[in-house]
Amino acid sequence: MKTIGIIALGLVTLVVGVSTVATAERPIDQGSPVYGVTLPKEYRDWKLISVAQENGKNNDIRAILGNDMAVKAYRAGRRPFPDGAIIVRLAWHYQSSPRNDAVFPAPQSFVAGEPTNVQVSVKDSKRYAATGGWGYGQFENGIPNPDPAVVQACFACHVKLEKLEKGADFVFTGYSK
Amino acid sequence: MKTIGIIALGLVTLVVGVSTVATAERPIDQGSPVYGVTLPKEYRDWKLISVAQENGKNNDIRAILGNDMAVKAYRAGRRPFPDGAIIVRLAWHYQSSPRNDAVFPAPQSFVAGEPTNVQVSVKDSKRYAATGGWGYGQFENGIPNPDPAVVQACFACHVKLEKLEKGADFVFTGYSK
Repeated sequence: MKTIGIIALGLVTLVVGVSTVATAERPIDQGSPVYGVTLPKEYRDWKLISVAQENGKNNDIRAILGNDMAVKAYRAGRRPFPDGAIIVRLAWHYQSSPRNDAVFPAPQSFVAGEPTNVQVSVKDSKRYAATGGWGYGQFENGIPNPDPAVVQACFACHVKLEKLEKGADFVFTGYSK
Repeated sequence: MKTIGIIALGLVTLVVGVSTVATAERPIDQGSPVYGVTLPKEYRDWKLISVAQENGKNNDIRAILGNDMAVKAYRAGRRPFPDGAIIVRLAWHYQSSPRNDAVFPAPQSFVAGEPTNVQVSVKDSKRYAATGGWGYGQFENGIPNPDPAVVQACFACHVKLEKLEKGADFVFTGYSK
């Protein structure tokens, strides 16, 4: 009985371990709730669209990258974005750098700390027709955030922009030369 | 005589025009003063190393990109950087975005405005042996800043970092995952 108990404990540990990796209820390859958006494999190698910084609750500094289709559309000034365009927003804690400030003439340097999350916007005008042609996902440590409210908040915010500025195709970021 | 005068005026205009494009004293292809660093052709397509923000006189938000050799060294944690590594720092005016803030729950959004300048660091341990193996250039609108004091200030600052932190190979920016 003791041996069986130990094996059972081992199995429980194994199952809990595996399900933690897959965020308990949601396998990684299913992507984000609502939209099923997955994290593109090579996104960290993609070209830079622009940078930004958010105060308040986010308190982050960010880079916006795009796949070739998105970057090509940006550079050509094409709106709406073509199906297949993907925009990825990476964010890190916004933090002052005492290391850099020790060298600079005055305290002035802010850098990227630990990553917070990665947000992915995928253009597919048919699949995501109900949300302006865009599907959304948010990833922490490469794992999709399983909370539907998180990705629903994406569109809730982007649709406000669309109401203010029709030609933007629901996209906040502009291309920085 | 009148005709010759007009032709002469035309030639003067032409010469002045050409020399303006080439920043008066320095042809673009000669690159930066002191180091002869040129702006790499495809740098805007390079991979992202990290982002940062400077207050004070700079008041900018920036992205740091690298050629494949630089990015590979960053990802492998390799220091010193190998000869051929090039790091490019792009900067834009740091400005609040009333457009984004109209949508967000509170004023919080800062974005990249017009570009300020692009700084390029090239690793060549032989050619730039006197400056830790790094050559520097600063470019405005794609044209090398012709003032030697500007690029001399690069090394003056990077060497201070090297004194504080030997292993950094004179480089401020770390890689952001």
